[in-house]
Amino acid sequence: MTPAAVVVSVGDELLAGRVLDTNAHWIASVLRARGVPLVRRVTVPDERGAIAEAVRDALRRAPIVVVGGGLGPTLDDLTRDGLADAFGVSIRRDAVLADALAARTRARGRPVTESTLRQADLPEGCVALENPVGTAPAILREHDGTLVLAVAGVPIEFRTLIERHLLPRIDAWPGRARAPRTDSVTLCGIPEAEIGEALADLMVRDRDPSIGSYPRLGNVTLVVTSTASEDDEARRRVEGDVAEIRRRFSASSLAPGRALPAEAVAAAAVAAGATIAVAESLTAGLVASLLVDVPGASAYFRGGVVAYADAVKERELDVPASVLAAHGAVSEAVVRAMAEGVRRRFGTTHGLATTGVAGPGADRGVPEGTVWIAVADASATVAVTFRFGGGREQIRGLAAGRAVDLLRRQLAGLPPTAP
Amino acid sequence: MTPAAVVVSVGDELLAGRVLDTNAHWIASVLRARGVPLVRRVTVPDERGAIAEAVRDALRRAPIVVVGGGLGPTLDDLTRDGLADAFGVSIRRDAVLADALAARTRARGRPVTESTLRQADLPEGCVALENPVGTAPAILREHDGTLVLAVAGVPIEFRTLIERHLLPRIDAWPGRARAPRTDSVTLCGIPEAEIGEALADLMVRDRDPSIGSYPRLGNVTLVVTSTASEDDEARRRVEGDVAEIRRRFSASSLAPGRALPAEAVAAAAVAAGATIAVAESLTAGLVASLLVDVPGASAYFRGGVVAYADAVKERELDVPASVLAAHGAVSEAVVRAMAEGVRRRFGTTHGLATTGVAGPGADRGVPEGTVWIAVADASATVAVTFRFGGGREQIRGLAAGRAVDLLRRQLAGLPPTAP
Repeated sequence: MTPAAVVVSVGDELLAGRVLDTNAHWIASVLRARGVPLVRRVTVPDERGAIAEAVRDALRRAPIVVVGGGLGPTLDDLTRDGLADAFGVSIRRDAVLADALAARTRARGRPVTESTLRQADLPEGCVALENPVGTAPAILREHDGTLVLAVAGVPIEFRTLIERHLLPRIDAWPGRARAPRTDSVTLCGIPEAEIGEALADLMVRDRDPSIGSYPRLGNVTLVVTSTASEDDEARRRVEGDVAEIRRRFSASSLAPGRALPAEAVAAAAVAAGATIAVAESLTAGLVASLLVDVPGASAYFRGGVVAYADAVKERELDVPASVLAAHGAVSEAVVRAMAEGVRRRFGTTHGLATTGVAGPGADRGVPEGTVWIAVADASATVAVTFRFGGGREQIRGLAAGRAVDLLRRQLAGLPPTAP
Repeated sequence: MTPAAVVVSVGDELLAGRVLDTNAHWIASVLRARGVPLVRRVTVPDERGAIAEAVRDALRRAPIVVVGGGLGPTLDDLTRDGLADAFGVSIRRDAVLADALAARTRARGRPVTESTLRQADLPEGCVALENPVGTAPAILREHDGTLVLAVAGVPIEFRTLIERHLLPRIDAWPGRARAPRTDSVTLCGIPEAEIGEALADLMVRDRDPSIGSYPRLGNVTLVVTSTASEDDEARRRVEGDVAEIRRRFSASSLAPGRALPAEAVAAAAVAAGATIAVAESLTAGLVASLLVDVPGASAYFRGGVVAYADAVKERELDVPASVLAAHGAVSEAVVRAMAEGVRRRFGTTHGLATTGVAGPGADRGVPEGTVWIAVADASATVAVTFRFGGGREQIRGLAAGRAVDLLRRQLAGLPPTAP
């Protein structure tokens, strides 16, 4: 059977929101890289019946089933019982395993209890697999072309056991598909709906390559994936779509595989020998922080001024008091003066500035979400304005994202906003 | 029917491991706080049939079904179709909604397209509910004692729509059990393992109250929950545990229910009439940004200098070149000079400064993760040092979190670090 997988996560703590399920997230990307589609994830409580039902249901959907969690020593660890019920078998205690667990526990100076020994219980027809980083062994059943592997839910144990016991079996799976060919393009400053419209002919269901879209901080990453059986053909298709997307969104697209506008800023700044300083009001450090997310930023990023108070805009950025009084702090005149002021003060080739109203509510008559952004260089200052929604955090985040993108466009000699 | 819920997450990106499903995690804790058990979580691909099957299955398990994702404008957004199939109805376009979407899109100066209008499609028998932070409205069906609510998967939209449209309906649900009594205490600057050790007698399985621990940016939030059947008894138990935790971690604990050190800074700064400026090197704006996350920060936060380059530390913060040369940029002498310099420059009562090595790798012989933080006020300057691990992003985040906590402690007259 072509491999495909279902992951069953077991645990009241996951359903109560006490623990974030990073295991299922991690294994999803690991399987994807091997060309094994994860067709479903399900989380069930620490209940024998729920575990058994989920495992039976999973086996109807895919030949590979991974169960995470519920293998510990305490009485609410019921995955062993759930597996036995799912397979219609009984449980027996593995004597060799029990001895090993007892020896290991004594070696740590801990008492050997019934709780310890429960971890040597195995559903009939299953085998126990070594757990080098914890006490509960993994439990494997291979039967009639299917594979069920249950592993501990503690993240380090989960990962170690999957890498040690699942991945080699997947790599040897008969008829396994080659991993799909994939690449990504990030588009900056264009709403997702417009992207969908402009790519409607490519984003068609059941077409190969498929294109998924993932928005973040005002940018949208498009992931292009081909499962064509010939690798050369798959590569050709992915490259074709990536090139076509970049053609349609030329000025708004980053280089393939690059997800952050700040990385494009880094490349352009280094290439041009540019240096950068920022003056931030509503973003208050977020823009600087995005730029510094890229290792090596010290080659072109000098620093900046967080000018939250108007007096700081005056004193540290030389914004004239008369301009502040005449136009208000959230205005084109002020954002231009901020960008030019920080450029002059810091002696950089480029100055980037933000001002706006993060809210909640309007500020001195300027509506919440109003944002001005400017970039100054030796020859000119460019200013753009936006009106964002979504509350304080969202407004500040989008403003910072757009500021980095404006800088990127300016460094690359592109128009300041998407058409 | 006693309320219980199933969450269905829709999206190829979740099954491919490209996006971590924080929505399902968040809603789990929100429902738990209201006494509504989440009985199952399931993640399905962007496939009409899979969505429909999951919704039907969920309705057999619980009367409340939340569907997250797949409501966007592109053709791979198939939740509307899946819902229609699950309910056995057809889809119609809501004219009022389509007009509203078109008007909103035009108001932002963007073209109205078929993609935009798809978001006005509704399965028959469903109603659209306002989305104040995005374009896709939520979709609700109330039928025969059950409730199905589908909301956008973008986290800010998911949370806003659940808070606005689901929680009030749950609060009004007939026969709802009383929510468990709960409160939280956030501890700043103490490792989670140490907290677990110090509270081992309270964090016992099956004890009431239960205590969950959730680390974030160097702080750990402890959630204390009692399900005692008598409300007075439950309140008494929660208050008892909260008081005991605060007793054991006095200077490191925030007021109950307060999750952010920056909120404590705000309260202390306003009470003391303090004003704040920051000088940041490795954190490069993150500290300012954390302080400004609190609405109303302009009452005490003036701004700061991002002094990434050494020349900026000299020119904008008056750090003597001789001190930089003698001690290096990552040193106690420099962080003290930065804190004092920004305080003097900005004319504030308090100056807060950070310097350190975010990595990757050592910088001029100083190991990655080395961080100095200082606070200066009129009477003295206090400096502390840390050695963080976990890579560039983690190091910068932890440094920023500890900087805010040092300021909090200083404003409250507490010792600068946990014992």
